Amino acid sequence: MNETETEKETGMGLQKERLRQQIRFIVEADKVKNIFRQTYLADGARRENDAEHSWHLALAAVLLQEHMKEEADLTKVLIMVLIHDLVEIDAGDTYAYDEAGAATKRERELKAADRIFGLLPEDQGAYFRSLWDEFEEYETADAKFAHLLDNFQPLLLNDASDGKSWAEHGVHKSQVCKRNERIPETSEIVWEKMQEIMDQHIRKGNLQAD
Amino acid sequence: MNETETEKETGMGLQKERLRQQIRFIVEADKVKNIFRQTYLADGARRENDAEHSWHLALAAVLLQEHMKEEADLTKVLIMVLIHDLVEIDAGDTYAYDEAGAATKRERELKAADRIFGLLPEDQGAYFRSLWDEFEEYETADAKFAHLLDNFQPLLLNDASDGKSWAEHGVHKSQVCKRNERIPETSEIVWEKMQEIMDQHIRKGNLQAD
Repeated sequence: MNETETEKETGMGLQKERLRQQIRFIVEADKVKNIFRQTYLADGARRENDAEHSWHLALAAVLLQEHMKEEADLTKVLIMVLIHDLVEIDAGDTYAYDEAGAATKRERELKAADRIFGLLPEDQGAYFRSLWDEFEEYETADAKFAHLLDNFQPLLLNDASDGKSWAEHGVHKSQVCKRNERIPETSEIVWEKMQEIMDQHIRKGNLQAD
Repeated sequence: MNETETEKETGMGLQKERLRQQIRFIVEADKVKNIFRQTYLADGARRENDAEHSWHLALAAVLLQEHMKEEADLTKVLIMVLIHDLVEIDAGDTYAYDEAGAATKRERELKAADRIFGLLPEDQGAYFRSLWDEFEEYETADAKFAHLLDNFQPLLLNDASDGKSWAEHGVHKSQVCKRNERIPETSEIVWEKMQEIMDQHIRKGNLQAD
């Protein structure tokens, strides 16, 4: 075997090893389809899981980009929302209004991020980790857009399912407003729509006024 | 009201109308979470739905791009896989090896595409429709990559769930090969892996040899 053939052999070996690691990650990620959230589907029939939620955010990202105050990098935002809940495979879903769960959430999720993104080839694992960190830090235009999607989509599902999840948990408008306090700096028109929806559900008795 | 204020007012009215149409589409798209496929989740516990499947393809697209022979536009491929099954909201899922269903599939899906993409603001509806058409035509590098994902992901889930779906339907290797006949022109390394998986499941008796 001459040098060129050896190099080619090694290159092919590396590529196969990368594919093996990528497949392991893709199959591991399947578990997020079994992590159920508190939000119901639009028809109210069952709760939605993290994979469905992430798909819905990505779809909405493509459509709602035009309403953001700051310009975002769509590809980055798409990848960010596709992976943002993968840590819940180990850490579980912490309901938005669960204060006890929130106290330990960060620690559980950091450990999960190490393990899950660690399954990938190093460069791809580091890239996904950097996007997850950016999402968690909530500072860049891309992270703000991703958070807006993560907050707006469940509100749309709550609206479509007659505020089922809000009613079940006795949620107050002030809690929703607190959770969404950074939406106005990201998009005024979306924030206006969110308030409109909340007020409708206060009138219907699904969301508690303060 | 002077001219500038009127224009601003009209611009805001248009933006609100766009948001209203986008929300209607986003909520309608939720129905794809209730369209179940023949493929089981990796743990074999239940079948997966189109939203989960589309999320999984998008995640895999980011990771597997490096193995494609032709360069693809990742953003376009992501959007393509996110929307490729929305027509099934009206047309239903047609199993890969259902010949009777295949005969009427195209007509059912075209009608669905008209209605579903028609909910969006015209420019966005036309864009999604063009991506769906491109996917269906299966000619560009982007469409080939999207089809590879659409074929490889269920094969990985079949592998992880002990060939459950193949065994249930008595699928033959020649049927899988026929369905995947254009994979070798898209990525040799992925095709090699697919064959490896099929051969393992023939040995295990989950897939029928020809």
